[in-house]
Order: sequence, then structure tokens, then C-alpha cells
Amino acid sequence: MKIYFITTNKHKVLEAQSIMKEFEIDIIQLDEEKYEPKEMSLKEVTIYNAKKFYEIHKKPIVVEDTGIFFDAYLNFPGTHPKLVFNMIGYKGILKLIKNENKNAHFKSVLSYYDGQELKTFEGKLNGKISTEIHDKDLDVLPYERIFLYNNIPISSIPRIEKNKISHRSKAFIELGKWLKTKN
Amino acid sequence: MKIYFITTNKHKVLEAQSIMKEFEIDIIQLDEEKYEPKEMSLKEVTIYNAKKFYEIHKKPIVVEDTGIFFDAYLNFPGTHPKLVFNMIGYKGILKLIKNENKNAHFKSVLSYYDGQELKTFEGKLNGKISTEIHDKDLDVLPYERIFLYNNIPISSIPRIEKNKISHRSKAFIELGKWLKTKN
Repeated sequence: MKIYFITTNKHKVLEAQSIMKEFEIDIIQLDEEKYEPKEMSLKEVTIYNAKKFYEIHKKPIVVEDTGIFFDAYLNFPGTHPKLVFNMIGYKGILKLIKNENKNAHFKSVLSYYDGQELKTFEGKLNGKISTEIHDKDLDVLPYERIFLYNNIPISSIPRIEKNKISHRSKAFIELGKWLKTKN
Repeated sequence: MKIYFITTNKHKVLEAQSIMKEFEIDIIQLDEEKYEPKEMSLKEVTIYNAKKFYEIHKKPIVVEDTGIFFDAYLNFPGTHPKLVFNMIGYKGILKLIKNENKNAHFKSVLSYYDGQELKTFEGKLNGKISTEIHDKDLDVLPYERIFLYNNIPISSIPRIEKNKISHRSKAFIELGKWLKTKN
């Protein structure tokens, strides 16, 4: 079975492919930008885009959206991690978390739509925000350098290990299990 | 002459009407939400929407967008004042500005499109971010309570006075002057 993954991010494609291989599912990248209005939740973004891209391509579609949530604030950086990083950088983020509750979590949401069935899956990763920036020389996402999982910055965890525990992997595993039950 | 102002905010309509009356221009509200993708600048948002709403209504359209920019950060809250306030509130905003350069400015951009001419105008208001929240009991925009103009919180300045100095008024005055030269 083939499913079409809407993303411009090659790393995410490789991660999804390595997970879905276990379920005998081929992940094919559709290199397109999803539509992300400011007011939508992760779930709303993925459902909206799964339906939209199904209408265009008429193939089984999967759309992913990820946020990071600091317990110290209401919805921050929340569904806008990239925007927040571009606005205030590490300087602002570390200042906001100073002397505050350091607990945080990543959350990934996936929606699958094949014209008939619409299903949504979630994965979560709990950790803490670090007071310093790690692995400045590595090619990782900005928040990975300041997110501690079991007190280890996730930027320092090898990708193959990270794929076993990550929020995004967990959501893909749920999708794989569900698709397996259908066949 | 009549021009159609795309906004859901009645206060902005009253402000624009009182300014444009001087130029013998009627401002008529079109109570619709403008489209604001995360990546667009103020200018891009206003131009995009002026063209879009002209196509729908076929009447002279004006669209306004306003941001607030803290000198201490790259683009913060920038074009996303409401989103930032909903994410981190006064607590986060005041924390970010603590021990930093307090200079800031509001910037309003207006775009006018009548199917032939497309013109953009800007207005700016310089001030400082306050270390405390003023006028908690007044019905004003959140940033007005922490923005000092000549050391006075703009939340404390009567609306009629504020309309003479505000970023938005300045942009409307420029629009009025330009429309006057056309007739």
C-alpha cells in the first residue's frame, strides 16, 4: 500500500519511511507546503490539509503537524515553534523559561484521509527545557538543542534512537497499526 | 467619494471616518476578516487583501494591518501582536523586555486599490515599553497598556488625542492627501 505524505522536509520523509516499512507501507513524499492559518490547532491543520490534498491528488494522504508546549505558558511556542524562534531566538526563549517550570512536551498530530476514512493519530514526548543551548554544530531543529529527554538533549540522541521515542514516530506507529488492521 | 474599509473592528472604522471626513471621503465598513498568512509582511498582507476584496466587491478598497516592534528583538511581536499576547500574556512580554532596550514602535500599513491604482501608505509611532501594566480597567488594546508615548501610557491618552498622533491615523492622513490630489 502507498500513502502520500505532504511535507517539504526530507528528514521527516526518511523517518516516516523507516517506520512504515515495518507495516509494509510505502511512504511517498508530496513536496508541497501545507496551509497553516494562525488560529488552527494541530489537529485542525492536519485534517484541513488531508482533505484539501486528497481533493487535488485523489490518493491516500497523510499530513503531519508538530508543536512544542512549555508548561510555564498558556500556548507557547505551541503550534508556532518556527515563528516564535524567528521572533525571539534562543535569547528570548531561554529568558522566558528562566526561573519558571521547565516541563514541556512535543506533540505531533497526523491525519490520514483516503476519500472515505478520516483518522487522526497523536504522539507526545515529555521532557524539560534546558537552560543552555546544546550541540550548536549539529544540523538539527532549533528546539532539539534545548529539549531534554531523560536529562539528555535530544539533539545529542542519534537519529535511529530518536526515531524510536519521538512524538512523530509514535503517531506514525499508530497510523501503521491502524492501517494494518484494515488490510 | 466612498471607499470601503475591510475590518471587523468598529473602533478602527470610527477612527478612519473621523480622519477621512476632513478630506471629504466616506469610509464604509466591510465587516470581513482579512487573510493573514504567517509569513507575510504588513505590506504584503494589505496588498494581497486589497486586491482580493476588490475582485469580490469591485469597489475602491482599503485594507489596514498593524504591528508592534520591540528594538530588543528581531521581529517581536512584529506582525503577530495578538498571537504573541495569547501565547505568553503580559507576564511573558514584560519578562522579555526586562533589562533590555525598551524602545519600540507601532507601524500601520494601508493599501488602497480601486482596480487601477494600487497605493500603500505607512504611519509609525515611536515610544517605549513600560515595565508595568497601566489602565487595567479601560477597554483598550493589550499593547496600549504597556506602550509609553512621551512617557505616558497610550491607554491613558483620550481617543480624540490618540487619533491625532497614532500610527494608523498618520497612514489614513497620507491616504486622504493622496486621494485629494487625484480629484
